[in-house]
Amino acid sequence: MTDTSSAENLAAQPDMLASIDMGSNSFHMVVARLVQGEIRTMERMGEKVQLGDGLDADNYLTEEAQQRGLDCLRRFAQRLNGTPPEGVQIVGTNALRVARNANQFIARAEEVLGYPAEIIAGREEARLIYLGVSHTLSDDAGRRLVVDIGGGSTELIIGERFEPQELESLHMGCVSFRNRYFADGRITRKQMDNAITHAEQELLGIRRRFRSVGWESSVGASGSIKAICNVLATLKITDGTVTWSAMEELRRRLVDMGSVEKLGELGLRPDRQNIFPAGFAILMGVFQSLNIQEMTYTDGALREGLLYGIAGRIKHEDVRERSISALQERYQADQSHGAAVEATAVAAWGQIAEHWGLNTPADEEALRWACRLHEIGLAISHSQYHKHGAYLLRYSDLAGFTQQAQMELAILVRGHRRKFSSSIFDGVDPGDLERLRHLCILVRLAVLIQHSRNLEPPPAFTLEPRENGLLLTFPECWFDERPLTYADLMNEQEYLAKQNFVLELAGG
Amino acid sequence: MTDTSSAENLAAQPDMLASIDMGSNSFHMVVARLVQGEIRTMERMGEKVQLGDGLDADNYLTEEAQQRGLDCLRRFAQRLNGTPPEGVQIVGTNALRVARNANQFIARAEEVLGYPAEIIAGREEARLIYLGVSHTLSDDAGRRLVVDIGGGSTELIIGERFEPQELESLHMGCVSFRNRYFADGRITRKQMDNAITHAEQELLGIRRRFRSVGWESSVGASGSIKAICNVLATLKITDGTVTWSAMEELRRRLVDMGSVEKLGELGLRPDRQNIFPAGFAILMGVFQSLNIQEMTYTDGALREGLLYGIAGRIKHEDVRERSISALQERYQADQSHGAAVEATAVAAWGQIAEHWGLNTPADEEALRWACRLHEIGLAISHSQYHKHGAYLLRYSDLAGFTQQAQMELAILVRGHRRKFSSSIFDGVDPGDLERLRHLCILVRLAVLIQHSRNLEPPPAFTLEPRENGLLLTFPECWFDERPLTYADLMNEQEYLAKQNFVLELAGG
Repeated sequence: MTDTSSAENLAAQPDMLASIDMGSNSFHMVVARLVQGEIRTMERMGEKVQLGDGLDADNYLTEEAQQRGLDCLRRFAQRLNGTPPEGVQIVGTNALRVARNANQFIARAEEVLGYPAEIIAGREEARLIYLGVSHTLSDDAGRRLVVDIGGGSTELIIGERFEPQELESLHMGCVSFRNRYFADGRITRKQMDNAITHAEQELLGIRRRFRSVGWESSVGASGSIKAICNVLATLKITDGTVTWSAMEELRRRLVDMGSVEKLGELGLRPDRQNIFPAGFAILMGVFQSLNIQEMTYTDGALREGLLYGIAGRIKHEDVRERSISALQERYQADQSHGAAVEATAVAAWGQIAEHWGLNTPADEEALRWACRLHEIGLAISHSQYHKHGAYLLRYSDLAGFTQQAQMELAILVRGHRRKFSSSIFDGVDPGDLERLRHLCILVRLAVLIQHSRNLEPPPAFTLEPRENGLLLTFPECWFDERPLTYADLMNEQEYLAKQNFVLELAGG
Repeated sequence: MTDTSSAENLAAQPDMLASIDMGSNSFHMVVARLVQGEIRTMERMGEKVQLGDGLDADNYLTEEAQQRGLDCLRRFAQRLNGTPPEGVQIVGTNALRVARNANQFIARAEEVLGYPAEIIAGREEARLIYLGVSHTLSDDAGRRLVVDIGGGSTELIIGERFEPQELESLHMGCVSFRNRYFADGRITRKQMDNAITHAEQELLGIRRRFRSVGWESSVGASGSIKAICNVLATLKITDGTVTWSAMEELRRRLVDMGSVEKLGELGLRPDRQNIFPAGFAILMGVFQSLNIQEMTYTDGALREGLLYGIAGRIKHEDVRERSISALQERYQADQSHGAAVEATAVAAWGQIAEHWGLNTPADEEALRWACRLHEIGLAISHSQYHKHGAYLLRYSDLAGFTQQAQMELAILVRGHRRKFSSSIFDGVDPGDLERLRHLCILVRLAVLIQHSRNLEPPPAFTLEPRENGLLLTFPECWFDERPLTYADLMNEQEYLAKQNFVLELAGG
């Protein structure tokens, strides 16, 4: 080695975090920074190492398989360089739990990486998966079932918000099932049935307990479930949601295709094709055993859970409130003004929400958050800042929010000023249109009433429903010192009239 | 007044700035915040008060005109509330310079506003206009002529960077010219010629001096020039640039139309129509007297100059460097990593720029800045962060940058990772395509070489031109400890090959 540029010239980066998950099928690394108490992902890397494939008949990892893993870790190590040791966690899962020479591999991995590595138990893996998922999912109340099908094991968890209640790790995975049922590349009805039955047998021990605890929603993590969602969408069987009937349909199609080689037609990458039927069979077994009706996919998983574990400082408060505050801080929104607008919107909400059929807590939350965030786009430019704010809300990583909830916030911010054009609501489901228009009008009025930005409490206005509109009455003489608001409201009447909404004004 | 919500309940907002420009045609207000040494515009308001129109034969402001002005200021005052006095500057210009009862109006204005107001001299107005423009314009070297046609006066300045050299304020404006030449709403050849000649006469006193100092570029500010640019673009005479021949063409068209009432067809707002021919005549006079070939429009003007004056803390360093640093800070980019990527890109630049015909300082600057900013999109989301970074660069208020320069930075950041697809360069002028592709390749290679992020100085690589490509040679054994970079470069070969660019690798 005559390398002259010193690789020892490392700069420690104290806010860096990284986790590596040495799975039975793939190795994954996530590098992140801790910024103002938030985990900001910097890079994700993944390689299909297929370590689980490298177990010989006596459960020793072959030298070849170890080399595949170490080659991958060498690439990861280059990126890991300089991360402080307390910010790194590296774990091995099922293939290493099983391998008799796992300690040898761990020692070699530590040498390559320059950081300690460890093997975690199945239940700890399940706990970390739940931690990762709970920080990524919408923070709704209600129990949820989380399923993660790995290369060598499958984790099932029931939890509520940040607390797991049931944790299980079963010794079945898509690599081991592939080797057992689909090793020759053929997909026959018989082999598929056998694989599904095998999965159901593995689930027998937890089935009763999980079904008696119950859940309100179920989500899947891991590449196998992601691939199934993508295939369902590609084949236009569903929009990507896994349903009972979609699984039945996909089983028929797979058997009809008859061979993993044909799976490229479904849009699967070559390295995913040969384990796809095995992952499918396990999920089918889970659906049948636990009587699941519907499952959606989520990105968060073991490696995110590891990061949240490292960054233990992040408290388990309402993850959505934390996301909203982080946005306000990052874009230096005027928080006192946001709070004044919010208070005004809530005063309006109290008078009209019931009449408008806006009676869910989610609607009131969306209204509150949109008020707090309406000006974040100013950080980009004053010109068209409502559009910039909408962009930020649509594309930012907002832990705790669903795509749909982010989209609605973006619409409310997009529509909070200037023309109230119908294009604001482009792409909105017709069933949501009236609700969003009404919420948007409340945001607009609250912003106008607080235009002077002197942090006054909301005036004692009253709102009364009118056909296709509202009667807004202000306290006597209120406009005397607020000629700007008066002019604003005159303009607003015109803006709303173009959408057939009549704003009547009285008092003031 | 029985208003119960207390308007005295004002919260002081220490970082707020505001300026009001009581012009002869319009009153304008800008409200801004000082955030990390940068002026962030919060709101702009403008109203067509036409104060200059309210001067009677003896140059007294009529009560009616004063009331129009005070009504407008009442609306502004509501928004101004709570801004600390040291953060506010309120100035009157030509109509108030001329009015014999200006002091009476100023006293009434101060009472309405609650802040002191003053009348500024024409040369001070010119100085402030230049201050506003110089912070908004691209910070190129070279002298520039700035022209601002107001309602009652026209300012002309020659300056270089932040230093004005020649400052003039002439007593002609679009309101006074309208009253004199186009009061009946007709546009005749004779009246137009008379108006232009009048403007040339006003310019006689400065013509020789300005022409002998000279300038490399000329820009126009103010609503009159903006309206001319818009009309030229609407009529597809030019893209919005004012040229000599475009002015000739527009003169013919105006005379052909014959009446201000028809100017609505050009997309002019009603309140702009009746002063448009007057503003045009003054600009035509300026073009002829000073022999201007081409002029572009810029947004910055008196009110921005007032803000920069208030925020005297902002130093006159290179305004572009300040904008770039502000972006790095706002989006918490890793500045050391950005610097390492920049150093690597510059090392590559030194070896290949000449061969590629990249020999302007502007190209090297774009390369440097793109390297410093390539990761800002991570603040929004890791997913597709190159696209988020491009959005931020395209739409942010970046003082000192032209639209074109912002667009090029956005393209370099958009194209710094992942597929090198031709859509990155959509909308680029064909003459700029090769240059931007080459700059983009340099950014990509620098990012890959620094992938390990350990802040190493650039390795001693060499770059040699090849037909349709590059030969990139690394020091011996350099890849031994950098298997990730090696894998990256293999991928990069494929990405570039799809755009018919051959990346040959050697050494390492």
